[in-house]
Amino acid sequence: MWQLYQFPLCPFSRKLRLLMGEKNIAYELVRENPWEGRDEFWHLNPAGRTPVLHDAGRGTALSDSQAICEYLEETVERNPMINGSALQRAEIRRLVALFDDNFYADVTEPALHEKMKKRIVLRQSPDAQVLRQMGRLLHGHLDYIDWLVDTRQWLAGAQLSLADLTCAAHLSVVEYLGAIDWKGHEQTQGWYMVMKSRPSFRPLLSEKMEGIPPPREYASLDL
Amino acid sequence: MWQLYQFPLCPFSRKLRLLMGEKNIAYELVRENPWEGRDEFWHLNPAGRTPVLHDAGRGTALSDSQAICEYLEETVERNPMINGSALQRAEIRRLVALFDDNFYADVTEPALHEKMKKRIVLRQSPDAQVLRQMGRLLHGHLDYIDWLVDTRQWLAGAQLSLADLTCAAHLSVVEYLGAIDWKGHEQTQGWYMVMKSRPSFRPLLSEKMEGIPPPREYASLDL
Repeated sequence: MWQLYQFPLCPFSRKLRLLMGEKNIAYELVRENPWEGRDEFWHLNPAGRTPVLHDAGRGTALSDSQAICEYLEETVERNPMINGSALQRAEIRRLVALFDDNFYADVTEPALHEKMKKRIVLRQSPDAQVLRQMGRLLHGHLDYIDWLVDTRQWLAGAQLSLADLTCAAHLSVVEYLGAIDWKGHEQTQGWYMVMKSRPSFRPLLSEKMEGIPPPREYASLDL
Repeated sequence: MWQLYQFPLCPFSRKLRLLMGEKNIAYELVRENPWEGRDEFWHLNPAGRTPVLHDAGRGTALSDSQAICEYLEETVERNPMINGSALQRAEIRRLVALFDDNFYADVTEPALHEKMKKRIVLRQSPDAQVLRQMGRLLHGHLDYIDWLVDTRQWLAGAQLSLADLTCAAHLSVVEYLGAIDWKGHEQTQGWYMVMKSRPSFRPLLSEKMEGIPPPREYASLDL
């Protein structure tokens, strides 16, 4: 069975878990705090990042969340999430990168640093100025996601895809950290509630990061 | 014909140009300085990054370098660069991400910021401390690339792949900026000279970034 090295608030691991949930692929969780820089973990992934998908029996260790998603798409046909024509697949991958690179750098990463890492690793208070700037950038990203929701059935087109899973993974981390303000973004909020109610999302909603309780609305499926 | 929006020292555009060169895909260059934030460019790519591959005739604008590379792999069969079994393809994509994410953040991005952006945009002097830290991190990355070169024919295995093109693209930017010290890394230097002597590399070596002359060894194919 696959072992997934991750920590509960890693957005890239969440993206992968949502994909494995949609494709009904079994795995067990292995807790890994990449900031501890364990030698054994660096041996599995020299990039030092979660997730790593490890099959000790077959001696296979896959890393980089997008490389793993592409691997699972190629090897497990059920419920394809990078699907359609080459142009549609390019659009899915463009949005995945937009969330994993831009949204992460602007929003998820500062939220994790200020509200998780400073709390449980550095023992510092969050920087209000950084959080305000993050909020402004989040607002801009939500405007763009609102536009996608308004003009398409799902974020990348007519079908649920890895773009939806990736965006929902990042938003779920930011929501867990109490850093989302949905005001003016009812379209995206509605789409996100639909994503949250999928069975693939359930294991994420019940999981806690120690020392950081989520806000009450996090596990709720009501608007 | 494809139009490729880029600036000469963009490592992601270089990776794409190397792939298009290997696959013999025609394109013309359109100069874009993403830091100027042109509205027209943001309209093509809301991530605001180069490269963008645009076909005005067909109304197609592709962005994110990896999404574009995957698109070209799927639509142009000649000289596949993400090839082999699903596991081999996962290894190619893992290394591409290692160079595009980790190597970029540790080395290419600080080199570009200190030695290009400060010179031609911000009109500031480079920060010697940042460059020293970049040099230390580059040394660690070169150790890992040495190991790949020592144990495999090409970086990801028995075949030339997008991993080699991506690594060479980043190294070529750092070399252009005069920020590489090859001492102790003769294996990687030898592999890089082989990459540089490929026809796909030639257009890159003759191109200049205004105001920043490359060191003499940049365009040289001798060790």
